[in-house]
This record gives sequence, structure tokens and C-alpha cells, in this order.
Amino acid sequence: MALDPSRVVSRLRELRSLTGDEKGEQRVAWTETWAKGRDWLAASLTDLPLDVERDQAGNDWYTLRGTSERAVLIGGHMDSVPNGGWLDGCLNVLAGAEVLRRIAEEGTPSVTVRLVDWADEEGARFGRSLFGSSAAAGSMVDQDDLRKLVDRDGVTLPDAVGAYGVDLDRAVDAHSQLEHAAAYLELHIEQGPVLESLDLPLGVVLGTFGVERWRITWTGQAAHAGSTPMDRRRDALAGAAKLALAIRDVAREAGDGAVCTSGGVVCRPGIVTSVVETAEQLLDQRHLDPGKLASMLSRAQELSRGFAEEEQVDVDWEKIWSIEPILFDETLIGYADDAIREVAGTSHRLPSGPLHDAAEVSRAGVPTVMLFVQSLRGLSHTKLEDTKPEHLELSVAALDRLATKTIDWVATR
Amino acid sequence: MALDPSRVVSRLRELRSLTGDEKGEQRVAWTETWAKGRDWLAASLTDLPLDVERDQAGNDWYTLRGTSERAVLIGGHMDSVPNGGWLDGCLNVLAGAEVLRRIAEEGTPSVTVRLVDWADEEGARFGRSLFGSSAAAGSMVDQDDLRKLVDRDGVTLPDAVGAYGVDLDRAVDAHSQLEHAAAYLELHIEQGPVLESLDLPLGVVLGTFGVERWRITWTGQAAHAGSTPMDRRRDALAGAAKLALAIRDVAREAGDGAVCTSGGVVCRPGIVTSVVETAEQLLDQRHLDPGKLASMLSRAQELSRGFAEEEQVDVDWEKIWSIEPILFDETLIGYADDAIREVAGTSHRLPSGPLHDAAEVSRAGVPTVMLFVQSLRGLSHTKLEDTKPEHLELSVAALDRLATKTIDWVATR
Repeated sequence: MALDPSRVVSRLRELRSLTGDEKGEQRVAWTETWAKGRDWLAASLTDLPLDVERDQAGNDWYTLRGTSERAVLIGGHMDSVPNGGWLDGCLNVLAGAEVLRRIAEEGTPSVTVRLVDWADEEGARFGRSLFGSSAAAGSMVDQDDLRKLVDRDGVTLPDAVGAYGVDLDRAVDAHSQLEHAAAYLELHIEQGPVLESLDLPLGVVLGTFGVERWRITWTGQAAHAGSTPMDRRRDALAGAAKLALAIRDVAREAGDGAVCTSGGVVCRPGIVTSVVETAEQLLDQRHLDPGKLASMLSRAQELSRGFAEEEQVDVDWEKIWSIEPILFDETLIGYADDAIREVAGTSHRLPSGPLHDAAEVSRAGVPTVMLFVQSLRGLSHTKLEDTKPEHLELSVAALDRLATKTIDWVATR
Repeated sequence: MALDPSRVVSRLRELRSLTGDEKGEQRVAWTETWAKGRDWLAASLTDLPLDVERDQAGNDWYTLRGTSERAVLIGGHMDSVPNGGWLDGCLNVLAGAEVLRRIAEEGTPSVTVRLVDWADEEGARFGRSLFGSSAAAGSMVDQDDLRKLVDRDGVTLPDAVGAYGVDLDRAVDAHSQLEHAAAYLELHIEQGPVLESLDLPLGVVLGTFGVERWRITWTGQAAHAGSTPMDRRRDALAGAAKLALAIRDVAREAGDGAVCTSGGVVCRPGIVTSVVETAEQLLDQRHLDPGKLASMLSRAQELSRGFAEEEQVDVDWEKIWSIEPILFDETLIGYADDAIREVAGTSHRLPSGPLHDAAEVSRAGVPTVMLFVQSLRGLSHTKLEDTKPEHLELSVAALDRLATKTIDWVATR
């Protein structure tokens, strides 16, 4: 009748053999392999006194009713990217299931405890991540865009989700699931190298970075590489090159773990015998502080205008997407620090670069916190993704202690 | 019985209406439109006492026999790129035809004078330029590669040239055409902005740049744009960006009109959410001096190794192609200077960035020189290519004077 963290590691390996292949995990949302993984999860919980429900957005809820309707949620996602790692998303669910089992076996809890397996966190098939959690959070406001999404085989998103019982027009009705939610907890692998570099197994997540994502188009003049003197050129690549280098200082100057990335430059005509006429550059900037994120963007734009003038080219900025920083709950952050110290001695606070379902729940007003467990070499979204078994076990133990503290907190509010 | 430069301008306009469309000239080699242009040229010369011959490489020769077999050649090419300009290649041929007419009408010249219309200078259809002139020069040594070339419709080069009477296996027999060649003259539009910037109509070409053409692969590590701290990144794009900027100083330091171009960078995975793992960069370096060209290359390689170390990425250089600088004949350069001064007052000497058929003939050991006429805005390989009519007429007059001086020189050697 006690928590068994090692069982979670065994179950993760069992899931890998069931839904992975030589290239990695294949539980892409809205596919048979994903459904197989979810069925396997459901089958493992039938011996517990749970209410089981799939909501209008395809999220699976496992509810252990407590003395109070007020609920502590523990969440994760069974879906993976194609050729994914064995921990991203499902560690959270399986650790949550183990914690739920421990609580259930102790009798009726003071508050309701619910495990949620969010639908389509990765967005791997249709390019739209956080499907289920955004529907539940009430932030899915882009149904008209979602209706048009098509996978590489020509299947529309409405048809794909329909095959799993989801009516896109009614997905936002999943919002009712958060009615009594009083706290949300999520464990996840870090997917970055910070904890490994500090030689720490676990960390508390302060929140998720705000993101500014832009497409920058530099326009110069195509010209013969042999006959155009250097001082007569208007080289679009020169502008992109200067900005790709300068954004690194923009990030460093902003501090607090800020990141700026130029993920690529597409050059046209892109041939060896011509000066580059247009260079289309991708930029991603992230910060936990909204003001500093805005400053990073305006600084990059200001620099780009200077580079355009120096190189006698034009520069144009087009927004791809953005999201504000989402800060997690101060009280829960404190409990998470305590839980980590109890199992691992030392805690560390860090922001999350990637988004997570927890960000959607937090946006909906539910007090939220996340735990990160170390990722070896910071790798994720690849079969090379890995975490030491002893760290996985520590993470389950920390989530369990955090759940207890959170239940007590919610019960007394 | 005098030279009529204005007739050349009229003939150029006539050719444009015959073989161009709203997008530009369409005389791509080994096509019906190209053949139509060549037939039109041949028809215009039937009244002169010429021997007409198509050689084994598809080059058309118009020979005015002189007292001596020793021959002065005047060359150009009727083929164009798709959507090409109205002057590139055919100005040379039509100006040469006018000069040949003037000489023929004066009676038998002291030496033989031959007009050559080279086959497939541009290489627009199969990506292999200087087809006819390299065959004649004896530098076509890549028949095995040529045999495999296929156009975008799946037609092989041997089939395409076969339709115009050329047997690829026998193309190099065209070398016999150069047996009595004592000098080679070619007029061409500059295809660059130098003469326009000097406000000069004409210039003498010193030779063609040597070219070093390389593919540089930078290899770092793909990493999540959100979760990878700036100081933990191995960003392949950073190496490419530094080199793209640094090669400009390499060119300026080498001087003498040296050029270095990074024609493009291909980034992988090339997505907004990942640090760039590999960046494949194109580099083209050109100089008229072989030693300085070699220095530019080794300097760029040395810089790249430094950048790789700074960015903790790998760098690998792979040669695409190179050609040594080809210097034109000192005596003929002097005559060309004189000819230009006589018709335009001021001459100017400049290297050629682009390659030309003249480079192949010069490599074969035939004393060679070229004249450049100003290109408006330096544009070429586009329908926007243009030169003032008065400059075109001056160029025909200069070629005529150069031909006379060259004939006299060859006759007395």
C-alpha cells in the first residue's frame, strides 16, 4: 500500500515495447498506436475506484472522488511526436497514475484527485499543439483555422478527431472539467541541459517563457557573383547573417535565461553564381518577463533596421505567432521546492522554454506548478531522449510528496 | 561599302522580334527557337563569298578565305538563357557579321577571317556551359559526365545534341577548326556595372577571373530553441554567418577587383523551434591573379577554422569546381586599347568576372582579346538587360578597328 516509483519505470518500458519501434515512440495523437497506449493505461487502472470519462476534446479523466468536490489535478499526455522519446508526456501520466494508486489505496481523500491524459499535446500530425488542454482551458478560439488543417495524407483535423469521438464544434465544452479544479500538478522531463549541467536530478518550474516568433525578409538585389564589384552589392544574406549573430547578444543582455534563435535562413536564388536577392530568416525569442520579452523584440527590430541601412537592403518583419509568459503559482512553487528537497536534498528553480499543457491550465486561472526531472544531454523529441532510472524514481517520489502537500493545502482553503 | 554599325542595332531588334517573347529572349541551345535564330543569321550572309560549315560540336563557321590560311577569328554565341536579354552573345555574332561584310566587300583579305557562332555557351538546358568552344579548344574532357546530363523533361544531352547533328563522341574533333587560328576576338556586353560607374562606353578585357567554387558544411547540434541556454548551443548557422560576412573583407584585402560571394546557406532542420544543426554554405571566389586567388581561398579556410572553434562546431570544405585565371594576349590588349581610344576617346582595362568562349580559345593557345561594352545597371540574364544604342554602335566600330589591326599584325608575323 505504498508508493512504488520503480513500478513507473517498469511501466514506461512496457509502454515502449508496446507502442515504439526501432525509430522511437509512435504514439502520434489521433492514430491507432496512440489509442493502443491509452487503452493500455485505462486497463491498468480498472482495479481502482475511479470515475473514467473522455471529455468533448478527447481528454481522458480518471477521477478519485474525495470528501470535497474541490479537485487536485495531475496531468500529462500519452501522445508523442513521430520517432519520439520514451518519457516525453507519458512519464507524467504514469507517475500520476502511481500517485493516484497510492492515494486511492489509503481510502477516500479529503479532496477529489483527478488524473488527466490530455489529447494531442504535441500537435505532431496537424501542427497545432495543446489541443485538449487549450479546449479545456477555454483558450481554443481558432476553430475556424483548425477546421482547415490537413495532415500529409489529406485527412482533415475534424475527420481525424471525429474518428476518436471528438466533435470539433463541441470541443470547448471540455471547459466544464475545470469547474472544481483547485490546483494542477505536472511532472515532465526538462528537455534541456540545465539540471544536468548543475548535476541536479529535479527542479521546480517557475512558468513558461513568453514567445515571439517572427519571419524576417531581407531583400537586396540578385547580381552576378563574377561581375559585380564588392562595393556595388546589395546582399540580402549579409543582413540575415548580422542579425543571426547579433540576437545572441540581445539574449545575453536580457538575462534571466532568455533565448533568441535564428532557426534558419532561406536564400533566393540560392545559387553559387549569384549574390543573394532575398533571405527569409526565422526568429524565435523567449523570456519569462513580458517587459523584457518586448524589449528583446524591439531591440532585434532596431538592430535589423541598422543592418538594412548598412547593407542597403530592405527588411520586413512578419509575425508568425506569440504567447505571453505564464507564471506558475507562488504557493505551489514553494511546495514543489519542499517536495524536491525532501527526496533529493537540493532544489533549483528554472523557467520552461517549451510550452506544456500546464501553461494552458494556468492561463485558465487554476493554481499550477510543474516539476522537471533531468534530461540526459538535454535531448528530446528523439529516441535518444533519456533520463537515469534513479532520477525517474526520484521524480515520482517528488510528485507524490507534492500531491500530498497540495491536497492538504486545497483541503484547508 | 563601309561599316554600318546602326545596321547591327536594327538586326538585333529584328532578332528579338523573331526569337523573343514578353519574358525575354528564348534562344536556348538545342531548341527550335535557337535553330531559327541561327538560320536567320545564315540567311543574312548568303550574299557574301563565304565557306559555311557546322563542325562536330555544332559550332557554325563562316569563313572568308584570305591570301594566307592563317586566320583571325571573331566569335560569339546565338544561344541565350531562358527569358534572356537581347544582347548577351548575339551582339558579338551580329557585330562580327557586320565586320566580316565590310572586309569581304573590300576584296580578298591578306589573312583568312572567320566568324564563329559557338554552340551552347550558356549551358542553360543541361547546366554545362561553353560546350562548343571547349570542344574546339580541346578542353572538353568530361564526356562521361556529359553523357549522363538530363534536362528537366528527361531528355539526355546526347539525344538533344544528336537532334542537331552532333555526335557527342566526335565533338572534340572540332579541335581541327583552330588549326590555323592566329588570333581570336570577341565583343560582349560587360554584364556588370564597372564601365557604367566610370561613365565609359567601352573597355578592354584583361582576361577572365580564376574561380574557386566550394561547398562548406558547418555541423553543430540541433537543440530546442526554448530549452537550450545560449551558452550551451552549437549553432551551425553562426559559423556560416561569420564566414558570409568575413569573405567580404577577404575580397577587399586581395584587391584588383577580387570578388567573394556566399550565394546561399541551406539550414537543417531549418525550423523556427530548433538551433541549426547543419548549414551548407556556397562560396565563390574570383581573382585574375592565381597566387592571390589561392591566398583568398586559404584565408577563407583559415577564418572558417577559427569560427568553427569559436562556435564549437565542425567545418568541412568540399570543392565544387575551379578554373585558373586566363590572361589575354598583351599585344592584342594593346590593339584593343588603341581601337577603343580611336572611337571613344578613352579606354579602360578590366577583368571579366563571368567566363566566356574567349577563355576556352585562349586556353587552347590562340592569342585572344575581348572588348566589353557598357551594360546599363550591370544587368544581364534578364529581359531588363540593355545597352544604349550609341554604345552598341561604338562597340561595332571598335571591333572593326580591332579586326583591321589584328589582320595586319597576323599578316606580318
